Amino acid sequence: MTDTRTETDSFGPLEVPSGKYWGAQTQRSLINFPIGWEKQPVAIVRALGVIKHACAEANKANGKLAPDLADAIIAAATEVHEGKLDDNFPLVVWQTGSGTQSNMNANEVISNRAIEMLGGTIGSKDPVHPNDHVNMGQSSNDTFPTAMHIATATQARDVLLPGLEKLHAGLEAKVAAFEGIIKIGRTHTQDATPLTLSQEFSGYTHQVAMAIKRVKAALPHIYELAQGGTAVGTGLNTPPGWGETVAANMARITGLPFVTAPNKFEALAAHDAMVEMSGALKTVAASLFKIANDIRFLGSGPRCGLGELILPENEPGSSIMPGKVNPTQCEALTQVCAHVMGNDAAVGFAGSQGHFELNVYKPMMAYNVLQSMQLLGDAASAFTDNLIDGLDANRPRIEKLLHESLMLVTALAPEIGYDNATKVAKTAHKNGTTLREEAIALGFVDGDTFDRVVRPENMVGPR
Amino acid sequence: MTDTRTETDSFGPLEVPSGKYWGAQTQRSLINFPIGWEKQPVAIVRALGVIKHACAEANKANGKLAPDLADAIIAAATEVHEGKLDDNFPLVVWQTGSGTQSNMNANEVISNRAIEMLGGTIGSKDPVHPNDHVNMGQSSNDTFPTAMHIATATQARDVLLPGLEKLHAGLEAKVAAFEGIIKIGRTHTQDATPLTLSQEFSGYTHQVAMAIKRVKAALPHIYELAQGGTAVGTGLNTPPGWGETVAANMARITGLPFVTAPNKFEALAAHDAMVEMSGALKTVAASLFKIANDIRFLGSGPRCGLGELILPENEPGSSIMPGKVNPTQCEALTQVCAHVMGNDAAVGFAGSQGHFELNVYKPMMAYNVLQSMQLLGDAASAFTDNLIDGLDANRPRIEKLLHESLMLVTALAPEIGYDNATKVAKTAHKNGTTLREEAIALGFVDGDTFDRVVRPENMVGPR
Amino acid sequence: MTDTRTETDSFGPLEVPSGKYWGAQTQRSLINFPIGWEKQPVAIVRALGVIKHACAEANKANGKLAPDLADAIIAAATEVHEGKLDDNFPLVVWQTGSGTQSNMNANEVISNRAIEMLGGTIGSKDPVHPNDHVNMGQSSNDTFPTAMHIATATQARDVLLPGLEKLHAGLEAKVAAFEGIIKIGRTHTQDATPLTLSQEFSGYTHQVAMAIKRVKAALPHIYELAQGGTAVGTGLNTPPGWGETVAANMARITGLPFVTAPNKFEALAAHDAMVEMSGALKTVAASLFKIANDIRFLGSGPRCGLGELILPENEPGSSIMPGKVNPTQCEALTQVCAHVMGNDAAVGFAGSQGHFELNVYKPMMAYNVLQSMQLLGDAASAFTDNLIDGLDANRPRIEKLLHESLMLVTALAPEIGYDNATKVAKTAHKNGTTLREEAIALGFVDGDTFDRVVRPENMVGPR
Amino acid sequence: MTDTRTETDSFGPLEVPSGKYWGAQTQRSLINFPIGWEKQPVAIVRALGVIKHACAEANKANGKLAPDLADAIIAAATEVHEGKLDDNFPLVVWQTGSGTQSNMNANEVISNRAIEMLGGTIGSKDPVHPNDHVNMGQSSNDTFPTAMHIATATQARDVLLPGLEKLHAGLEAKVAAFEGIIKIGRTHTQDATPLTLSQEFSGYTHQVAMAIKRVKAALPHIYELAQGGTAVGTGLNTPPGWGETVAANMARITGLPFVTAPNKFEALAAHDAMVEMSGALKTVAASLFKIANDIRFLGSGPRCGLGELILPENEPGSSIMPGKVNPTQCEALTQVCAHVMGNDAAVGFAGSQGHFELNVYKPMMAYNVLQSMQLLGDAASAFTDNLIDGLDANRPRIEKLLHESLMLVTALAPEIGYDNATKVAKTAHKNGTTLREEAIALGFVDGDTFDRVVRPENMVGPR
Repeated sequence: MTDTRTETDSFGPLEVPSGKYWGAQTQRSLINFPIGWEKQPVAIVRALGVIKHACAEANKANGKLAPDLADAIIAAATEVHEGKLDDNFPLVVWQTGSGTQSNMNANEVISNRAIEMLGGTIGSKDPVHPNDHVNMGQSSNDTFPTAMHIATATQARDVLLPGLEKLHAGLEAKVAAFEGIIKIGRTHTQDATPLTLSQEFSGYTHQVAMAIKRVKAALPHIYELAQGGTAVGTGLNTPPGWGETVAANMARITGLPFVTAPNKFEALAAHDAMVEMSGALKTVAASLFKIANDIRFLGSGPRCGLGELILPENEPGSSIMPGKVNPTQCEALTQVCAHVMGNDAAVGFAGSQGHFELNVYKPMMAYNVLQSMQLLGDAASAFTDNLIDGLDANRPRIEKLLHESLMLVTALAPEIGYDNATKVAKTAHKNGTTLREEAIALGFVDGDTFDRVVRPENMVGPR
Repeated sequence: MTDTRTETDSFGPLEVPSGKYWGAQTQRSLINFPIGWEKQPVAIVRALGVIKHACAEANKANGKLAPDLADAIIAAATEVHEGKLDDNFPLVVWQTGSGTQSNMNANEVISNRAIEMLGGTIGSKDPVHPNDHVNMGQSSNDTFPTAMHIATATQARDVLLPGLEKLHAGLEAKVAAFEGIIKIGRTHTQDATPLTLSQEFSGYTHQVAMAIKRVKAALPHIYELAQGGTAVGTGLNTPPGWGETVAANMARITGLPFVTAPNKFEALAAHDAMVEMSGALKTVAASLFKIANDIRFLGSGPRCGLGELILPENEPGSSIMPGKVNPTQCEALTQVCAHVMGNDAAVGFAGSQGHFELNVYKPMMAYNVLQSMQLLGDAASAFTDNLIDGLDANRPRIEKLLHESLMLVTALAPEIGYDNATKVAKTAHKNGTTLREEAIALGFVDGDTFDRVVRPENMVGPR
Repeated sequence: MTDTRTETDSFGPLEVPSGKYWGAQTQRSLINFPIGWEKQPVAIVRALGVIKHACAEANKANGKLAPDLADAIIAAATEVHEGKLDDNFPLVVWQTGSGTQSNMNANEVISNRAIEMLGGTIGSKDPVHPNDHVNMGQSSNDTFPTAMHIATATQARDVLLPGLEKLHAGLEAKVAAFEGIIKIGRTHTQDATPLTLSQEFSGYTHQVAMAIKRVKAALPHIYELAQGGTAVGTGLNTPPGWGETVAANMARITGLPFVTAPNKFEALAAHDAMVEMSGALKTVAASLFKIANDIRFLGSGPRCGLGELILPENEPGSSIMPGKVNPTQCEALTQVCAHVMGNDAAVGFAGSQGHFELNVYKPMMAYNVLQSMQLLGDAASAFTDNLIDGLDANRPRIEKLLHESLMLVTALAPEIGYDNATKVAKTAHKNGTTLREEAIALGFVDGDTFDRVVRPENMVGPR
Repeated sequence: MTDTRTETDSFGPLEVPSGKYWGAQTQRSLINFPIGWEKQPVAIVRALGVIKHACAEANKANGKLAPDLADAIIAAATEVHEGKLDDNFPLVVWQTGSGTQSNMNANEVISNRAIEMLGGTIGSKDPVHPNDHVNMGQSSNDTFPTAMHIATATQARDVLLPGLEKLHAGLEAKVAAFEGIIKIGRTHTQDATPLTLSQEFSGYTHQVAMAIKRVKAALPHIYELAQGGTAVGTGLNTPPGWGETVAANMARITGLPFVTAPNKFEALAAHDAMVEMSGALKTVAASLFKIANDIRFLGSGPRCGLGELILPENEPGSSIMPGKVNPTQCEALTQVCAHVMGNDAAVGFAGSQGHFELNVYKPMMAYNVLQSMQLLGDAASAFTDNLIDGLDANRPRIEKLLHESLMLVTALAPEIGYDNATKVAKTAHKNGTTLREEAIALGFVDGDTFDRVVRPENMVGPR
């Protein structure tokens, strides 16, 4: 049996593992919410440390909190945001919808750790009380949404954007490498007029550039913090200017441009900024899905597919088919993208369900957005390292397909008219012959004209 | 039986109703796609008129199209974008995924109308050929996505944004009207600390202000037009500068700041800009849902609900319960919002499914985005006219609830500590008494202190 | 200006077009809900006719309604369910969430038409009152959900199931036609071991057989009717046995096995049966999407794709590329499937949002489910007629690809071990040679053994 | 540094932690897929143990596998399905879409553990080879979908159905306990005619009974196993009857009625059975959401809400508002339900994306379905234990609201007509009086008649 100590809250005493700093409300949550296997994301835990640090500074500065208590709280909170106490945050996502219990988890851990630093008795709430001191000037209702925003902004900076930027750079390198490789285009999955492989990849690169832009465009509302709204948005039990002060502290601690939210009622009761970010992530997922899916098909084969790209071989592909190599990075990435679309549906739904002064889907919304960011960032990075960087063009195959295509006839249309050009293509298709043969046989052009007009290298741009 | 005339395409002759301008390809689409009841939205039809007008201008200017033909095409296309030929566009949404048949519908109608203007024989394709002249320098693959963007931008300007702006103004008027009405706050749907009704509505107003901002933030990518990419994005069969020229023409015709898309491969093969806009619409839907749902509950009653708001009575509410009045505008609006969330899921999915040089979910994506915009704009407008503008506060009821609340105890916490304040609230709840009685009885404060500290009017902001 | 007459409701008089039978409440709804372009589906309108017919019969039988009034109501209601008065139902989907106004629309139309039949004055409510007589024993709250279920069951029988059954038969014919055509399999889109084209299509056929089964499995809850619950589920203002009686009448009128719902509180306040049906439709959509997508890729080409299937040519494919033919039926069907997935998300959301005794997302849920059914049924039918029935195998192409494949090596693995078989495949891939050459060169088998073991015709089933 | 040993696959040698049984392919997956924090669910791992056990039995019985090797494999596989080797399965969800690497993880762990049991050298693949022996007669392509189905069926039996059944029993107890408590009904969130609290809860109970039925109705297709299809569905490298034999073995091992799938092509290439189950879970989520949301509102207060239900107090509700108690179980459950809706959207999307002979979204689909089941089962259970079982009716409050309601007027309508009853209700509402006063004052009834007709106890059922 684990050693325990007794902690109390307004509902009475509870035994808590003695090696942990958490208190009665955390322990009670473990008992009341045995739901699922998804813990509060670490990014949320560390964001709570940032908040407690920032608020203790402000409470010290305005004289409401004794300097020694404030300093102990700051030291303990710093351990939280530096990740030293991650294993003191055992709660699951599926708890009270305001995240109250995770806020209390932070209050309890920091209170007990600060008491310990000050030589007091853990669990005594003396001299550092989890509510009166650590939570001073705060409510879960403004603290948890602040933690959501800090975690989201941090995750964007540290995981998602680096992953997307790596992918962008990887694709851009291919745009350069694939310059001048003319290939058949495909529309409706059918043969169409030619383009260069570089042009094709420029579309992907542009999508990823816009993906980065879309995430960045959703960040400004994420930088707006609810802290200072306290229980219902009014700022009860805070001094004037509190929201601005603590936002500035958090900006300094994290290095991110946080500001206080312009309307605290909205910041507690709705999470439109999270829904907006989720919409941006869904758009990113749609983009990356398209790219990965194209590459999977362009690299299909080795002998019975399109075969225009040669994908790096990273691992054995089959437990039964010897020598098989599969586009596994495309599969991991498209699975991630499909999952992100589901997360977005959940976030939109949850975002609509605020009642009066509070939306109580906070932990679930944070979990979904943070997971989507982690997955997109990680998968974009792995996809670049293990697929894009090693991608090659299969030039002989590309060349062969290009010259077999019937859609080069499009270049003839301005010359001989759409209806005649149609006849050329249809006849060549029916007879299994070349466009050139049929165009001449039908009497629409002579060979010289055909050779002058139907030149793939002249068909990849306006003229 | 309807009178018909014979039209032809490369698949042969077909009978077409003689009162209509469309040709064989349109008629063939009617035969091949008897699917559903959803026609191509009028906004798409008119946008096609804009495109044909703009391209004919450019083709006349660069000398590729004889001035008399160009002028006839411009005149006919103008009739299309002015809405005079709406009933010549009978095709459904569920056709070829590039919208080719709707593009051909426009080509055929304009060709025949132009032929008619020039005194020729309808159906003869002479002197104005639907492909060689009306479609000159165009492909469905760049034309239809251009139509999608023009229709979306027009719908935003003419329907969605006016609806949201009306709602914003209506809510703002209530923020002013409800100034100073202090009421109980509710978090977790439970009694919480007070705020003013004006503050509560300021949250709604801020949400709608941000909704407008989000739609506007998604417009710049919508203003980027695919026109000039032609078949696969390369611009084959266009002269240099074509994309810029026709975008400028379309901007002039519509009064909207259209520009040519920076990457035409992306503009044909992905519709990330539409997915992005849909994400913005989903966020708007989440915001409006929350507002309408709150008002429905705050206006619940008349005798057994929360009853803080008095909703205008617009119609009999029940076919069986005499005298019943229902929050029907809230119901229409929340139904719209739920529907928009579904549309967004469909658009995200479709956006991910482009293959190689073309996404073939174009008509379906356009339909969903345009429908979402229409519904949100219309419903926001009706909601304002028929509910917000006539909304009243039930002041006696608000006053009564405020003074019964136990959560005013929060003001005591900084004075007597969180744990003692908890005892006061719990005892008053158990005994059905007032906070004041119990706070004094428990010896935590005297009556004067209580009266000084627990004042709702001091609890609605920082102090 | 249109001619009008005056109609009244408890909110006062209103002018109504004199050529129409509807009354004041319908007209008021037109004024109050100018939202969108989506009218109540015709299937709902006709279902309301069935209900009014069935209830008048029951009210006549139990003596509450005078026989002459009952007969007139029955006659008028029959005109409604036979579709003769469709254009008297002008209301949109986005109205009160109980469908009250559409129920009143039916009450008003039937009342006025019955008055007319009886020689009275339209608009006088005498001798047939829309509420007291036509709506006798009914509330919108039980009537509209009954209409939803009747419409859904009818749509399944008349549109969706016939479409799926046609598709099933079309695919089954191809299973027979493609017997014995051995082709390369593809897993991860990469070359894999062989199967027959018939086997491949048997998977599709099985999916559609299960799709039919899934729709049918969702019907029993749809056959349960809310009628008899009246305002809140208690059956107030109905005689004992009423629910059973009217359900039996409706079953007789429609020929569908309707029964009274076992719990009327659930039947008004939740629409789980509709959510369940929508989930079945979503599953059908996933199945059809897979089938259509496969066929599009297997038919890709004509020269630069997989090219194993030859798709019927139904229309010109491109406005710019002469002679292009596209898999447009695949595109229409996959667009429909993606749209149905969105509808399902909307229906699930709406289904969760009932409050207390009523879910007020009824018209929107009905609209989405009915639209999904119409689209899936129509698209499955068009897809069969215009694509499946004319589908051919490209036997030379299939043969060629089969014999080039490296994955035939899998047959060698039980003979020489997985690791050696891997070496054979990898070496042949690297050298561009055949498996046979390398298997012999590496000394693993002799030519005879190879020829005995590696036989595609022996690889398409257990041995 | 961790101690390692060298393992090899066809891509070469790799260092693996010496305390673990996994081999090179597992290790390679860890390197290639550093994506997210979601591990393969334990239910999948154990299902793989079941499969390997069942197949080794069959291979022993048909003489293809030496008895000593078979017995060692069976012993090792039994350790896997008994959960003794859970920590030897380190792979994440976001890997190859066929789950090949998790299948190889099982092959490698069982091979090495069996080698160890037989006294051989771990990593030598001798005498038990992961592919040739452990994977004999199997492909990842049939093994992983079999594992998905086994895990899903197990999760339904062990987690989801017990949770729902507990909730059903809890609600049923309340139906009995709340018998005879007449309360105001609410439609459109507005006061309506009365019902009993027991009737209201009977609706919830019926929803949960149907939820259980829906999950069970989706199980038969889950009981159909892909095993025996091997690489592409043909059953290559299996003897005739293999699918039936191994399904029977798995049924015996698990105690669940598994059978071999009737069409293996469908079973590998589509996962319609998973999409169908997900649709059932979505429907369950919609039902539970409605129930939890109602209870949250009916229990709102304590003084300023509806207050008809008294919710158990489980923990302190607020870090700032002393004494606050919140409906936290409703919040956990509704968060779960919203999340499940998102999972369903993801599963439907993924289910549509199979290509040719394989759907490569397997791990992601399994993860979403299993998570949804775990969350719904756990949350239903916690909700019952911590909320439903302790739920009380607030009888004085219920009584008070009932008698204030104006909608009792509905009982008068059959007596005095709908229009007159409307006048009574509207007048009482305007004057703040009772229905009785106004009905008499308006001369429609005398007091005795009113008292005879307007009796709530007579309004809760047909008469």
